Amino acid sequence: MAIVLGDNQYGKAETHVVRVIRDTARHEVRDLVVSSLLRGDFEDAHVTGDQSAVLPTDTQKNTVFAYAKKAGITSPEQFAVALARHFVDDVDTVTSAHITVGEHRWERAPVDGTPHDHTFVQGTQEVRTVAVTVEGGSTHVLSGLSGLVLLKSTGSEFRGFLVDEFTTLEPTTDRVMATSVTARWRWSTIPADPDAAYDEVRTTLVSRFGGLHSLALQQTLWEMGRGVLEMRDDIAEIRLSAPNRHHIAVDLSWFGLENPGEVFHATDRPYGLIEVQVLREDGADGEAPDHAPAWRAVPGFV
Amino acid sequence: MAIVLGDNQYGKAETHVVRVIRDTARHEVRDLVVSSLLRGDFEDAHVTGDQSAVLPTDTQKNTVFAYAKKAGITSPEQFAVALARHFVDDVDTVTSAHITVGEHRWERAPVDGTPHDHTFVQGTQEVRTVAVTVEGGSTHVLSGLSGLVLLKSTGSEFRGFLVDEFTTLEPTTDRVMATSVTARWRWSTIPADPDAAYDEVRTTLVSRFGGLHSLALQQTLWEMGRGVLEMRDDIAEIRLSAPNRHHIAVDLSWFGLENPGEVFHATDRPYGLIEVQVLREDGADGEAPDHAPAWRAVPGFV
Amino acid sequence: MAIVLGDNQYGKAETHVVRVIRDTARHEVRDLVVSSLLRGDFEDAHVTGDQSAVLPTDTQKNTVFAYAKKAGITSPEQFAVALARHFVDDVDTVTSAHITVGEHRWERAPVDGTPHDHTFVQGTQEVRTVAVTVEGGSTHVLSGLSGLVLLKSTGSEFRGFLVDEFTTLEPTTDRVMATSVTARWRWSTIPADPDAAYDEVRTTLVSRFGGLHSLALQQTLWEMGRGVLEMRDDIAEIRLSAPNRHHIAVDLSWFGLENPGEVFHATDRPYGLIEVQVLREDGADGEAPDHAPAWRAVPGFV
Amino acid sequence: MAIVLGDNQYGKAETHVVRVIRDTARHEVRDLVVSSLLRGDFEDAHVTGDQSAVLPTDTQKNTVFAYAKKAGITSPEQFAVALARHFVDDVDTVTSAHITVGEHRWERAPVDGTPHDHTFVQGTQEVRTVAVTVEGGSTHVLSGLSGLVLLKSTGSEFRGFLVDEFTTLEPTTDRVMATSVTARWRWSTIPADPDAAYDEVRTTLVSRFGGLHSLALQQTLWEMGRGVLEMRDDIAEIRLSAPNRHHIAVDLSWFGLENPGEVFHATDRPYGLIEVQVLREDGADGEAPDHAPAWRAVPGFV
Repeated sequence: MAIVLGDNQYGKAETHVVRVIRDTARHEVRDLVVSSLLRGDFEDAHVTGDQSAVLPTDTQKNTVFAYAKKAGITSPEQFAVALARHFVDDVDTVTSAHITVGEHRWERAPVDGTPHDHTFVQGTQEVRTVAVTVEGGSTHVLSGLSGLVLLKSTGSEFRGFLVDEFTTLEPTTDRVMATSVTARWRWSTIPADPDAAYDEVRTTLVSRFGGLHSLALQQTLWEMGRGVLEMRDDIAEIRLSAPNRHHIAVDLSWFGLENPGEVFHATDRPYGLIEVQVLREDGADGEAPDHAPAWRAVPGFV
Repeated sequence: MAIVLGDNQYGKAETHVVRVIRDTARHEVRDLVVSSLLRGDFEDAHVTGDQSAVLPTDTQKNTVFAYAKKAGITSPEQFAVALARHFVDDVDTVTSAHITVGEHRWERAPVDGTPHDHTFVQGTQEVRTVAVTVEGGSTHVLSGLSGLVLLKSTGSEFRGFLVDEFTTLEPTTDRVMATSVTARWRWSTIPADPDAAYDEVRTTLVSRFGGLHSLALQQTLWEMGRGVLEMRDDIAEIRLSAPNRHHIAVDLSWFGLENPGEVFHATDRPYGLIEVQVLREDGADGEAPDHAPAWRAVPGFV
Repeated sequence: MAIVLGDNQYGKAETHVVRVIRDTARHEVRDLVVSSLLRGDFEDAHVTGDQSAVLPTDTQKNTVFAYAKKAGITSPEQFAVALARHFVDDVDTVTSAHITVGEHRWERAPVDGTPHDHTFVQGTQEVRTVAVTVEGGSTHVLSGLSGLVLLKSTGSEFRGFLVDEFTTLEPTTDRVMATSVTARWRWSTIPADPDAAYDEVRTTLVSRFGGLHSLALQQTLWEMGRGVLEMRDDIAEIRLSAPNRHHIAVDLSWFGLENPGEVFHATDRPYGLIEVQVLREDGADGEAPDHAPAWRAVPGFV
Repeated sequence: MAIVLGDNQYGKAETHVVRVIRDTARHEVRDLVVSSLLRGDFEDAHVTGDQSAVLPTDTQKNTVFAYAKKAGITSPEQFAVALARHFVDDVDTVTSAHITVGEHRWERAPVDGTPHDHTFVQGTQEVRTVAVTVEGGSTHVLSGLSGLVLLKSTGSEFRGFLVDEFTTLEPTTDRVMATSVTARWRWSTIPADPDAAYDEVRTTLVSRFGGLHSLALQQTLWEMGRGVLEMRDDIAEIRLSAPNRHHIAVDLSWFGLENPGEVFHATDRPYGLIEVQVLREDGADGEAPDHAPAWRAVPGFV
């Protein structure tokens, strides 16, 4: 039974490009970490060591920087599509390109009370994400976010759950619920203004998280996903992954003190992890049923 | 077009259990970080908020600790299979369980020159990994490792590659090659002694990395994978993911100094990323062609 | 020459306490990571192993949670002082207590456009810090912040610097300047409203960073520190530590492209590091000249 | 009361240099992360923005690479001293230089059972450290390590401690004790073979940790420090910092199971932190009493 090469891909990970748009005195900044993974005719590169089909990862890095000038960066979606198309269209040996982007957003810094023209403040770990897969003539785009950290100090229950011999958890009708949301959504058609669309999705996610009296994180994620699909017809599917950042009410009765939902120990590990896909019943949105190309650029559930 | 719930799973991530085997004065230590993800009949938990089918993630954590005593930990493979089977067999609402384990290994500390009975030293970031998927009656097991950091100070070339308009890299016949290997391999039959099998695979990976005069990291990974499949008939497939930790020879001619492969700048980002699957030509090893269940427990290429 | 015990201290690091203030329907959240280090009569604990003078670190953790209820958390300064005083005043064997606090701030989440009563959003890595040292009857308080990430896309020069045989850097009159500021300031008198005082200092730091046409990061830090001391008479001293997050303009001429300050490679390591202390000339603010107690609770320059 | 500039320093942090010694076919590799901080006549750089006294941090980076060739790297101590002396002796405006080095050690990889000439394996997070301060004509050297992770599965007690109203911890005569040791030691005279000296100190630390029946981590650290000072006359002082990585015995009685020291929950935060200085009674070892210059290059207790 011969040993053979199977799937393979290669690329340049985490090229950190910052693009300043300085056509006017009021600058804009786009701050992107870009990774490319290419597939194609690379069997010889592995089996004989012949690299003649291999575009070096160093070249892929250069291409990211060159395209930040040539194509510009009007949105991470536009930039990722331009890069992916380039690798598939312009490099003969490449049949498929996966581009992932994480964008850190900068806000205008207030200087003497006024948002400044060329000074920006970040301080956030929230990342806007894009994943693009180009295969031949087709282009698949996911938008998303990670590090959206949310907390409800009340309005969250967890009770009526299954009990087995290893269950010690007490049911509760009032707990703190906190999580760091990762989400990806798939467009049936790419929106004309990806920045505005992103803001709208994020606003909906936050609003639904806060507005729902939660019976479980599962229910909250389902409602968040449903809210996004109700809001925008051009989103075919959304996937959410949310660690449950446990806030344990501390038993202060040892010290003669009451604790009516006031003092919590926020723990790191272990943590619950809830993952949910919400989609439209009829998958007739221009993609094959399993949507593999759209998700191939990103690992994991989301 | 109705909005519906799609795939979903939930569980407890990163329960850190340490098991001391103290049947004799010469103790053994198994140090595992365990994550469980369950699938099953959880639609109501999302859509109506009814949690009666949901085994709390807190219970899953308790089960990890209880099974460390009940089933013991003779290998991470045995422990992960026992846990996964329990969730599927003993919890009515669970149809599929994914268990991932990362094991940190402790070595006996030398005390006055002699390996000690109950003192251990760690200091390594290398992790042995196991991923198990149980679906109904079938059990799928992957073994693996991450953080195996290797470096060759010579015996590595990269030349003859594709050149396009964005290529500035110079070909080289002598470079430093360094990487941190992540690998997963799929057993056609689970070995009787998983610890010995693990050590054999790891030894082979290191030996092939070092023994080959490398023409590219792609070729090195292919030979490493091929070596493992040649060594053990019971491994059906291996996947390797390897960042290229670039070591850039510093141009010292500015300062009137030569640099014949002696002084390097080791960079963090961006980095090349090479991912390869090596398998047997005839997939007749008791698994469906796409092997999805085996890999579902772990995100990404590997 | 006998071998003796020198300085020693011990405590509980990184107790993560979240306090919900729920006296009305409009909740408040204080989210603190608290560390305590105690000094005192602990020689026996080391030399003979007699622990009778040692308050367990587990007790210190309990005390953090109990004081979150007993003393409440109206500001991290008030909470740290209360804790430190307790350890020195109420535990006989403790002569000095150092408390450090990092506070993550939560903002009200907009739900349907309105800031919500009990839903909060975080997403920031910026941390407000407090370090308190109580020694006998005296109390020393530092306030501060870390992770304040700032960027200017123009208005920054670096030229006229010292050149030696190892210098290859070109002078520039227009560069991107970015940094992640860590700052600590020492109060001559503790402000009545520490939250308002903190906001004022942070606003001043951002405003001075943005408002100055910078000739070097050193100059910027000096002006930021000076601005804070000009703004508030009750601050005796400020120390700033700022990594220079280099943004390297990419040479696109290889590809026939111009790059007039538009495309940058943001690098991680190595990075410049600038550290500055700004203080009032006359140290007559109620502290000994070297201010050691105030700074002992925190390691490093800041 | 005028506002003035106080202490200040600047430099280049975390230059990652890898030096291959390839004089014979049997290569050696030294892998160092180097940081430099300079003090001197830099008031104008801050106050007027005049940079004529400032050696750019970029030049400091270049100097690290150039000295890896010019001076070579026979030990991190020799390299750090050479760099620090250069900055003070050769750059007019510099009066004091602090150099810190972290060395990652590579071991020869076994290839077909034999340690290889030019292939190395790492996988460890343990770091050897050096901190050097040169002020005018004097040179101060600290050697050390961090990330030495040790565990005893028995032979460790903690009982007889102080009890107050917030104490809930139960005393124990048999627990798991684990820690990640950071240590720094000060030489009265620099050893001729720093590599051999380092190995000897590390061996002693491990041996004492394992050999002692521990009554507390305080006692263990004291004995570790004492062991080092007994072993080597040329070490004047050692400081140790050790987080207590708590291993909590899980209460399995809920599930009808016994747990006689077999199943532990290893927790991350909060953690105990013990810090100890051990030194010779008579400080007559050629340094001023407070030893400030030796420790200035490194922040914190150790």
